[in-house]
This record gives sequence, C-alpha cells and structure tokens, in this order.
Amino acid sequence: MTIFSTIKQPTLILDEDKAKRNLSFIASKIKAQNIQFRPHFKTHQSKEIGNWFRDLGINKITVSSVEMAQYFAEDGWADILIAFPANILQLEEILALSSQITLSLLFENIESVTFIDQHLKSRINGWIKIDSGLGRCGLNLDQKDEIFELAKTINSSKFIHLQGLLTHAGHTYRVNKPDQIIKIYEKSSEGLNSIRSFPSEELGCNLKISVGDTPSARIVENFGQVDELRPGNFLFYDVQQYVANVCQLEDIAVCVACPVVAIHTNNYEVVVYGGAIHLSKDSHRWGDQGQAYGLVTFPTQDGWENKIHGYVKSLSQEHGVLVFPNGIPETLKIGSLTCILPAHSCLTVQAMRDFMNLDGEKISTLLS
Amino acid sequence: MTIFSTIKQPTLILDEDKAKRNLSFIASKIKAQNIQFRPHFKTHQSKEIGNWFRDLGINKITVSSVEMAQYFAEDGWADILIAFPANILQLEEILALSSQITLSLLFENIESVTFIDQHLKSRINGWIKIDSGLGRCGLNLDQKDEIFELAKTINSSKFIHLQGLLTHAGHTYRVNKPDQIIKIYEKSSEGLNSIRSFPSEELGCNLKISVGDTPSARIVENFGQVDELRPGNFLFYDVQQYVANVCQLEDIAVCVACPVVAIHTNNYEVVVYGGAIHLSKDSHRWGDQGQAYGLVTFPTQDGWENKIHGYVKSLSQEHGVLVFPNGIPETLKIGSLTCILPAHSCLTVQAMRDFMNLDGEKISTLLS
Repeated sequence: MTIFSTIKQPTLILDEDKAKRNLSFIASKIKAQNIQFRPHFKTHQSKEIGNWFRDLGINKITVSSVEMAQYFAEDGWADILIAFPANILQLEEILALSSQITLSLLFENIESVTFIDQHLKSRINGWIKIDSGLGRCGLNLDQKDEIFELAKTINSSKFIHLQGLLTHAGHTYRVNKPDQIIKIYEKSSEGLNSIRSFPSEELGCNLKISVGDTPSARIVENFGQVDELRPGNFLFYDVQQYVANVCQLEDIAVCVACPVVAIHTNNYEVVVYGGAIHLSKDSHRWGDQGQAYGLVTFPTQDGWENKIHGYVKSLSQEHGVLVFPNGIPETLKIGSLTCILPAHSCLTVQAMRDFMNLDGEKISTLLS
Repeated sequence: MTIFSTIKQPTLILDEDKAKRNLSFIASKIKAQNIQFRPHFKTHQSKEIGNWFRDLGINKITVSSVEMAQYFAEDGWADILIAFPANILQLEEILALSSQITLSLLFENIESVTFIDQHLKSRINGWIKIDSGLGRCGLNLDQKDEIFELAKTINSSKFIHLQGLLTHAGHTYRVNKPDQIIKIYEKSSEGLNSIRSFPSEELGCNLKISVGDTPSARIVENFGQVDELRPGNFLFYDVQQYVANVCQLEDIAVCVACPVVAIHTNNYEVVVYGGAIHLSKDSHRWGDQGQAYGLVTFPTQDGWENKIHGYVKSLSQEHGVLVFPNGIPETLKIGSLTCILPAHSCLTVQAMRDFMNLDGEKISTLLS
C-alpha cells in the first residue's frame, strides 16, 4: 500500500528528497561564490518547508506580498524582502512589519519613497527596482538620471536605507538554451554593474546588486559581480523549466495526483478530475501542440515514474483532458490515478493550498 | 467615502444589483418556457448568494464537485446534480450524499455505473453524459449503440434511476455571433432529440434532456424540446462573454479592485498589485493583441465606470501589467485603485475566495 491508495481527489504530492536535493545544490553553488542567498519563498509559501532553509543556515528570505511577509515573520524570520513594488495602500501593515523585522522594500518611483518615509518610525531597507529586459516593472537601465534621482531621494530619506539595485531577469524563462540564459544573465548583471558605481561618489555609498531567477541560478556557472541571488522556483522546478532545459525530469519535486473519470480510447484521450482550479491555467511549450498544461506520468510504490506518458491538452474548471500519443496504457482504468507534473509549480501550489509528502503527511502553507 | 477607500489589496467586488438582474432575466426566461432551471453554482460557490436563487423558488441546483455538493447540502439544498463524470474514488462521500439528498450523477461508462450501484443503499438519479461537440467528455452523438447500452445498464441497476441525456455545449464559448450560438444550440438539442426516443420502447421510459451553457441561455429565444437548463456564468458574466457578444459591459457584475504600484507613462503601461493568483491566468480575445487577461475601468462613488479604459496585457504571480492605449489618465496615481473586469469570472471567484459587495460587506464562499 502506497500513499496513492488513500487519494480520492486532486492532491499535490511533494517528493521531499527531490526538493531538498534541489535546495542543497543551489544553496551550495551560491555559497561557494560568497554571494548572499535570499531564496524566494513564494514558491512554497510554507513555514514547515521554510525550516529546511533554516537548517542550512539561511536567514534572509524573499516574499512577494505583505501577507506572505507577515506569515513568515510570525514564524521567526527576521530579515524579509518583499520583492514587489511597494504598495502604499498597505502602509499600516508595512509600518507594523518595520518595527518587528528587518524589512526590505522595492521602489521605482519617488512618490512611494516619500510617502512611506514620512510615516516610518523604524528603519527599513530600500532597493531600486531595475527592469533589465523583462519589461514588467522597474526603471530601465538607460534611465540613468531617474535612477540617480531615486537613489538620492532614498539616500536622503529619514528611515529608508539605500541598499542598491535589484532586478528579476525573468526573460530567462522565455528561452531554452543554456547559452541564451547565460547571455541574458551576463547582459543583465553587466548592465547593473555599469550603473552601480556612477552615483557612489555623490551618494557616498556603494550600491549592491540583487538578481534572482531560477534559470540563471541553475545554469550560470560564475555569477560574477553580484551581491545577492533570489531564486525560488528551483525548489520544485516544473515543466516550464524542464522544456527550457533548466532542469531534468527527475528534478521536478511536485506533481498533482488526479483520478481518471473517463477513457476515450479512440482518440487517445483520458479525462481526469483535475482542472484549472488545481493546476492553474498556466501552460508550457510542447512540441507540435504549441502548448500544453502539464505532463503526465504514473505513480510508483514510492513516488512517480521518471517517464512522460502524455500531456495535458486542455483544462476547464475541474476537468483535465490528457492525451497519450502512443495509446492509453491498458493498465489505466476508471479510478486509476495519474500524476501530472505542473506547467508552473508556484501557481499550482497557490491553487492547491497544501502538500502531501510521500509519507502521506500534510504540509500546510499560508493558504491552507 | 466609498468602499474603495477601505481597499488596500486585490479585492473581488460584487455589484449585487447587476447579479440579481442577470439572475432574474435568465430565471424568468427559462420559467416562461416551462423548462426546469437547475443553475450551476460553481460560478459563485456561496451559500449566501444561493439564497437569492431560493428566493425565486429555485430548489434544484448543479455543482461541479462532491465537495461543492456537500457544502450546499449542508445549507439545506436537497436536489443536487454533480455535473462532472462520477469519480468512483469518492464513493464514500457519494454514498453519504445519496442518503441525505436527491443526488444526481453523470455517467459515460458502464464501469462507474456498476461500481457505484453495487455500493448504494439509497436511490440516486443517473444522467448519460453526451458530447455534443465540445470534445471534452461524454459519449458522442453517433455512438448510439454505446449510449443505448449505458442506458440499459443504468435502467437495470438497483439504485440508479435513469433520467436522460445531458450535455454541455461549451463550444458556444468559442464563437462570437448570436447566430453561431443559436446554430450550435440547435444542432446540439436536435442531436439529443434524435436519440432520445430510440431506446424508449425497449427501456420503457422517456429520456429527459438537460443542457447548459450561458451563451445559449442568454441568446437563444426558443429553447425547444429540452427539459432542463443548467447555466451558471450568467450570474456575473465576464469579459469572455462580453467579447463573444453574449452580454453587455454593464451586465458584468464582478471586478477585482487592484492598487496601482507603478506607472510607466512612456509606454502607456501601469503595474497593479493583482496577478495570476487573483484573476486566474484565463484570457479572452482582444483586438490586435490577440488576447488579454481582463479589461480595465475605474471606481465610481457607487460601483465602477461602464467604460473600458485599457486591458490587462500580462499577469505574473502577483503583478498585472495594464495597457492604456489612449494614454494613462492623469488622475491615476501611485496608490489609486483600478477595477479589472475578469476574463473568466468563475476562475476569478475560485482564486479570490470571497466577495465584497458595494456596501463593503464580505460574502463568503466554500473557499473562504
């Protein structure tokens, strides 16, 4: 009897050994280069899993919301960066956190700096958000005047201690060759380094550089002149990372166990209980199909097969339609379980809200 | 002071008047044709909102999971159809529900019928799931022998009372002209009617027909020879329905209020706190962009503007990037709220977990 025999409905399964191996690899690699590792906890959102990081001596973390900062602060994490542009409407919560922990916020405009600074009573750290090519948020590398103005504003604020320049080179997620990832990483960190020094004379301080994305953390050998790395997804990986050649299939540490409810032998399709509300509607590149919503494998005695049997063709609210291009295995019956490797593990964790490990134990998250 | 002045983070706002007007329109239309209205509650997942339906005398409902059936059964709903192929792994929960309420299940294979029937101690209703063109699940209209076999199996079961043929013509969501929707509806209901009678002599019973999708419920004038309609999304509608010309902009009854955290005047973009974990990653067709993830409007004193100012270009976990093609309004500042009309309201409700009405009151759901 395995844990799979107890599962009745879509369940997020976590292979702790794989996740811990992924963690250990990245933590050692970053430590060996004397760079600050500030892992992003939005991938797991779990106090229990956070303890694995603590056991490795990690004491600075990244989160993506004020709520997530509150959750981990409650658990004793005392140095937290909210890697999202400061939301001034959450001033009250920011003030409370600032009196409780070493809080770091991201800024890309003077209004937010001024507004928050005039209400603060305790010191916080401030980073300038730079857009190094992703095109989502931050000041562009060529907006040197604006960056310098913002640096001076933060530096002359009463309570916000200027840390440096921070970027998320998330455009590494869009390529699929190691040399392309390395090129993006190098361009991004060179860009940051090219502006790091120019304000230092006038500012009287050195700006640090913080970067963070899983493809770079895994693929780049020499991180060069950066001070901090903030990857998160590397803990579980997922099919987006697999098809981008960032990880191996056996590195993916989570799957969603989904019961078979219909078998359509004629068109090689199987319908499972497991839809957009379980896997999220994020997709990944997949061969001739263009895109798919996860890859399909099967449970074993102590985990899941390290082999792809099919892909998720479509998702509606509760339904997942799986395609088995080489035919549906005869062993697959109504009521069998499939294991779906998610397109994007962070969003799947958010949707599923808690994990079951391979011992059948529940692991809670902020969302439980 | 409006409720918007109390909002600090992404909040799902419900305009109850709009939703009740949507409900009243569809309920009256279906009642006028003497057809059973069995609304799908997966759209709202809320006991409190369920009471609006009760107030109109509606006492039969549709849900999409065993868990949702349990939630509404607790609240006194005594006639519930789970419109998802029976998941035999949830046998225990199905048995408990069958002793408590009038439970209807969907079948498309003999294995599930036989397995569940041999464990039942109370009568349930069984519907045969027909694929009328969506291509997701069910038996195809041309699989007449299989449909007849399944009907006979259900009819000769001990506890499952054969109701008829059920379909979800969800391919109406893929078109955007009323006459295309009508054509799909007619083809689907004619197809069901063409097989409804053939087994009746041997079965000694008449098969009912149950259909259900919001585009048909809204657009089709004469529902013809069907016994039951099961739309759900019509309560709130969303941008998918709006761009498909199923509803008007002023019919959309939900939006997500999202704070502005960055303004990029140069490229007409604004970044809000509001991402895939709030809106879901579902998309809608949108002009030259191909697709977008919601449309942008602004709060008013008592709701939101009935005018589109921009669209959601991309979503990451917590970030939404909005584009204002005619320029960013000067009144929009860091800390302003935008109102995002969701691409797909059912998935947004699932992601947000509770509503705030325009009086600032919280409305809970199964997910709260």
